[in-house]
Amino acid sequence: MNALEVIGRKRDGGEHPREEIDWLLAAYLKGDVPDYQMAAWLMATWIRGVSRAEIAALTEAMLHSGEVIAFPELPGKKVDKHSTGGVGDKTSLILAPIVAAGGLYVPMISGRGLGHTGGTLDKLEAIPGFNTALSLADFRRVLAACGMALIGQTAEIAPADKEIYALRDATSTVENVGLICASIMSKKLAEGIDALVLDVKTGSGAFMQKEEDSVRLAELMVETARRMGKKAVALITDMDQPLGRFAGHSHEVIESIEVLKGRGAADLRDLSIELSAWMFYLGERTKSVDEGRELAQRLVASGEALQRFKQGIALQGGDARVIEDYAVLPQAKNHDEVKSTATGFLAATHCMEFGIALAMLGGGREKKEDTIDPGVGLEFHKRIGDRVNAGDTLVTIHYNSAAKLAEAHQRIAQSFIFSDQPVPAKKLVRRLIGA
Amino acid sequence: MNALEVIGRKRDGGEHPREEIDWLLAAYLKGDVPDYQMAAWLMATWIRGVSRAEIAALTEAMLHSGEVIAFPELPGKKVDKHSTGGVGDKTSLILAPIVAAGGLYVPMISGRGLGHTGGTLDKLEAIPGFNTALSLADFRRVLAACGMALIGQTAEIAPADKEIYALRDATSTVENVGLICASIMSKKLAEGIDALVLDVKTGSGAFMQKEEDSVRLAELMVETARRMGKKAVALITDMDQPLGRFAGHSHEVIESIEVLKGRGAADLRDLSIELSAWMFYLGERTKSVDEGRELAQRLVASGEALQRFKQGIALQGGDARVIEDYAVLPQAKNHDEVKSTATGFLAATHCMEFGIALAMLGGGREKKEDTIDPGVGLEFHKRIGDRVNAGDTLVTIHYNSAAKLAEAHQRIAQSFIFSDQPVPAKKLVRRLIGA
Repeated sequence: MNALEVIGRKRDGGEHPREEIDWLLAAYLKGDVPDYQMAAWLMATWIRGVSRAEIAALTEAMLHSGEVIAFPELPGKKVDKHSTGGVGDKTSLILAPIVAAGGLYVPMISGRGLGHTGGTLDKLEAIPGFNTALSLADFRRVLAACGMALIGQTAEIAPADKEIYALRDATSTVENVGLICASIMSKKLAEGIDALVLDVKTGSGAFMQKEEDSVRLAELMVETARRMGKKAVALITDMDQPLGRFAGHSHEVIESIEVLKGRGAADLRDLSIELSAWMFYLGERTKSVDEGRELAQRLVASGEALQRFKQGIALQGGDARVIEDYAVLPQAKNHDEVKSTATGFLAATHCMEFGIALAMLGGGREKKEDTIDPGVGLEFHKRIGDRVNAGDTLVTIHYNSAAKLAEAHQRIAQSFIFSDQPVPAKKLVRRLIGA
Repeated sequence: MNALEVIGRKRDGGEHPREEIDWLLAAYLKGDVPDYQMAAWLMATWIRGVSRAEIAALTEAMLHSGEVIAFPELPGKKVDKHSTGGVGDKTSLILAPIVAAGGLYVPMISGRGLGHTGGTLDKLEAIPGFNTALSLADFRRVLAACGMALIGQTAEIAPADKEIYALRDATSTVENVGLICASIMSKKLAEGIDALVLDVKTGSGAFMQKEEDSVRLAELMVETARRMGKKAVALITDMDQPLGRFAGHSHEVIESIEVLKGRGAADLRDLSIELSAWMFYLGERTKSVDEGRELAQRLVASGEALQRFKQGIALQGGDARVIEDYAVLPQAKNHDEVKSTATGFLAATHCMEFGIALAMLGGGREKKEDTIDPGVGLEFHKRIGDRVNAGDTLVTIHYNSAAKLAEAHQRIAQSFIFSDQPVPAKKLVRRLIGA
């Protein structure tokens, strides 16, 4: 086999036999296929597309490029959730302790935020001392001790994906459902899980803005997981507005704790319960999703989920006093109000713009090298369907540096669309795939 | 401007404004855009295509990435010919001395052979001592002294093309008419010529096997040359069988000298005269192509063209005795006959296979690093339309090493197609573009 032939086949719209994909990835990792050949192949693949069989082959090749974890020592089922990302999406911090408190294991390998989306690791690191860079041995120890552990992708997990993702990021070949599916699934299947719940975001704050693209990605991911012997289901959920009331790292930790205390925003609470319910059901902890929903609610009401979160924070080196005292989290010193100039019903938002504005203010990464100011955040006062009067506050900006405040303020102010007519509230879970 | 945006535009099928192409090439040459980003752009360009305006911008950007030669000191017009390459295509060695003898200047920058095609530089280097690596100063001196000079691409000429071509070669992005056009024209326009005759090959031994692809490339090249203020015309010529009777370096030098002596194969002689005639006409040496044809024939008949070739060889350090004594050229020690097993009319050949077989025997390059054995060659005894009897010799293989002889023999034997019915001879010049 040689690289020119393999690249040429995809360039001409052909389909690779499995051996070709195996060969290409192995040769790339060994350095026999240089970055520029891989880049040419990625662009051909982006434009020509990948078949389901090719996605499966790619996923497996990337998965087996590194270590595949297994937990034979743990007595219960291992389940996880993966979200394609959005603004204010913090359900991992809520459902991991709920599901762990329910007796399943949640070995969660998460990512960092980039561009308009936040990352679970960054949010957890707002808690002083919280260590997301555990060794695999410590990951096992924490997981065994409290049923949940949240770390970042290590060098051992799917190294081929890590290198290829970096190359895609630098060659405008990220947004392709087949490549996205293989990238996500190769990492998630390395976690040693029995079942996976996928939260595929759709709308103006999601990577996939069109529902049909989200559905296609969801179907591919569910199929790929099942080919690999894992239970899987996908929820297509709304990202036409931020999830919950807050975006920004300290704020999202607080909002998550609030939900675990039985308070917090209704949409965030509902989605966290819903995802937990599916995890209980796929993890065979309950006989139905309804039962899973009841169990999740009970674990929140009893405070068991909250206690589990506290235990998890402490086990990963974090300051567990955060549960009772939010003042241990970094806070922004200043605030600024974005007020409505219009009167009417809130009809839609340019949701991605909120994430971009947050990153501009230091509450996210514009470039990979950026450091995050966890105290910076946005507080959203209105939801789609709400009646708004001119002068009402739409968003409170919590900031430290005023450097880009005016620009961020303007971006946010321009991202609300109003209607004269009443607008129905958004449905949170739009579709179920693979249920 | 940034690379991701530029790559993304072509990926999505968009057209680059001229400034984007200028920026991309400049950034690539500076090293700000790495090979992998250029490779992604090249693949997107290969698949999505380039517009005529983009080709012009690319050509100019590559041209001006290096030195553009001018010859204000020379009193006559400067003309050149470029062929897209084939098997046995040695017209440069014949027409350069004809046109120089006719009073025009031929500053010819040529390439080397790769794969199934031969290269003018390699053929000339079969002559002991012939130096194709002249400095620009020596190139000028030889050109002024005898009206012709034949050298290889120097580091000063279109360096952007040199780097991009190497990258295309390694990323399966060579065969795209727009990219081919820009690559050829950026080099040819750097030669300081007034007019260019293009010999675009078509058929089973050409890069472009379909006539419509050859016509498209010819049209693009003629248009690009004219946009840059140069006269240009393209001849679409047959490459369904080798040109002349020989392929292989020493053999092609001999056959060229034979044509300059008024002998040699009719097709090779006719095409050389035809291309010379167009060069005389575009170089304003004659008022018509017919007059140009007569002039070319007269310069051969009088021996002036042959003497000019001898002078040129000597000026470039070559052993000029070759004109009278072919034994100064390297010769192969052994020969092998490929005989016909069929009786009938020769209808077609897999012409590219002859070039591949020649390279296998050492008479060409399979890889860039290969050295050439100039003595190795193929002698073709039959032409399309000829009646052949079983047992007739089709090809004589002149070889030194028997290592791959059996494989080459078989390839050659399988590359002739016969018909029971008489087959018309091939027309040599199929179409004229831009005349």
